[in-house]
Amino acid sequence: MRIGLVQMNPKFGETTRNLDLALKLLSSKPADLWVLPELFNTGYQFISKKEAYDLSETVPSGPTTQSLIEIAKTLKTHIVAGLAERLGKKCYNASILVGPSGHIATYRKIHLFYEETRWFTPGDVPFQVNAIHYKSQAGGRRKCNIGMMICFDWIFPESARTLALLGADLICHPSNLVLPHCPQAMITRCLENRVFAATANRIGTESRKKEKLKFIGQSQIVSPRGQVLSRASSHKEAVHVVTIEPKDARTKAINPYNHLLNDRVEQFYK
Amino acid sequence: MRIGLVQMNPKFGETTRNLDLALKLLSSKPADLWVLPELFNTGYQFISKKEAYDLSETVPSGPTTQSLIEIAKTLKTHIVAGLAERLGKKCYNASILVGPSGHIATYRKIHLFYEETRWFTPGDVPFQVNAIHYKSQAGGRRKCNIGMMICFDWIFPESARTLALLGADLICHPSNLVLPHCPQAMITRCLENRVFAATANRIGTESRKKEKLKFIGQSQIVSPRGQVLSRASSHKEAVHVVTIEPKDARTKAINPYNHLLNDRVEQFYK
Repeated sequence: MRIGLVQMNPKFGETTRNLDLALKLLSSKPADLWVLPELFNTGYQFISKKEAYDLSETVPSGPTTQSLIEIAKTLKTHIVAGLAERLGKKCYNASILVGPSGHIATYRKIHLFYEETRWFTPGDVPFQVNAIHYKSQAGGRRKCNIGMMICFDWIFPESARTLALLGADLICHPSNLVLPHCPQAMITRCLENRVFAATANRIGTESRKKEKLKFIGQSQIVSPRGQVLSRASSHKEAVHVVTIEPKDARTKAINPYNHLLNDRVEQFYK
Repeated sequence: MRIGLVQMNPKFGETTRNLDLALKLLSSKPADLWVLPELFNTGYQFISKKEAYDLSETVPSGPTTQSLIEIAKTLKTHIVAGLAERLGKKCYNASILVGPSGHIATYRKIHLFYEETRWFTPGDVPFQVNAIHYKSQAGGRRKCNIGMMICFDWIFPESARTLALLGADLICHPSNLVLPHCPQAMITRCLENRVFAATANRIGTESRKKEKLKFIGQSQIVSPRGQVLSRASSHKEAVHVVTIEPKDARTKAINPYNHLLNDRVEQFYK
């Protein structure tokens, strides 16, 4: 299964330009699933709740979701992308999964970071896992179980753990990382859960307020054995495609005596 | 608070020699708390249940615990050490905490690794945290909350998380690591829980069976911000002492909007 990552530098508020750039980048190589950054179409550093709301879109009827569905149909691919989801008067930091059949799932960021807590409503639906299908090199139809989490969710081990317990083979992880720790920590997340993880991060800076934000890039795909299969630079736009075997994430037995999920001793966990 | 790590190469079955070596090493520098490796007095690679049992000792009445208590009194220090604990007909892979006042706590390894499952009974009491006291540089009496976990417990994020939720400032982590991932992963454990961690690992090899085990050393102390304050080599005996401020682990707010423990959204966790 070919997993593509788009690492790009969205310009704040220029949703059409950012969407067009993302579509161009993900059209440049073939892949079965693309992962785009968090808030890839709006940019990150909102300065008011109204601004975030005005840049948000309904899902799946809004223009960004519709464009992504359209290109997913054309390219026969799937796309995970972060955007601001509008629902009535609420606004979520969300990630959508779309494919040739249309909209498949929406994840609403459960652990909002920093000032996101001012603009967004925290995710109010559970983590979920959705199966998608792709054509194997031999031509057969194969399944991959996709879980989504967004950026800061990484620091809570419960996020990736929950997705693994729900059966995720691959954690798609749209991000706008500014702190340095996540790329390394995602290796731990993959090792402890034996899952793949695809973190699509952005690059560039935003300084719409006193605080200047510098995004760290380093979009990466990590294997269930903790190998970094691909890592982009910290400052350049990048389109990386890596071929993975989703079923490598399904054997949680790490030796004849230990199983990463069955060995959990819940009665001793807080 | 001065935390000392002993990285040593136990000789299998030579409990007196191994104990004497550990006592010599921890007497070589002043510290308020020492951490010794897992099974520091017996060695690791048992070939039968009987052998493990024969090398196990009661706690606190056995000779190893008594010797550690004695030196803790003499040196006015505390010691965390891994040993095989005998209880009736059972045998645990355990870690004890002793100090000038005697035996304080025993942790029995909950997640046994590989063939340990053949020799040992899995830990049957919950993770716990115990306060110890030390004299600050200014002369005042200060508290540090000590949690213990052993080696392979690291791969289950629930172990360190549980200790953090119980109030641990410092996770003492006696180890006999053979796989390469733990030193890096412990940085993630410290970041996600904002705790200190002191991993005391052994060096050397054991090949009492067909499988040759090579222990990776790299004993380390990591700060709540994920800094490696000290890391020993992969192959040399080492005695490292690092001064830490336990209360640096007590602020779980990582910015004005986020708190590593209070931001957990348990209803969405499996």
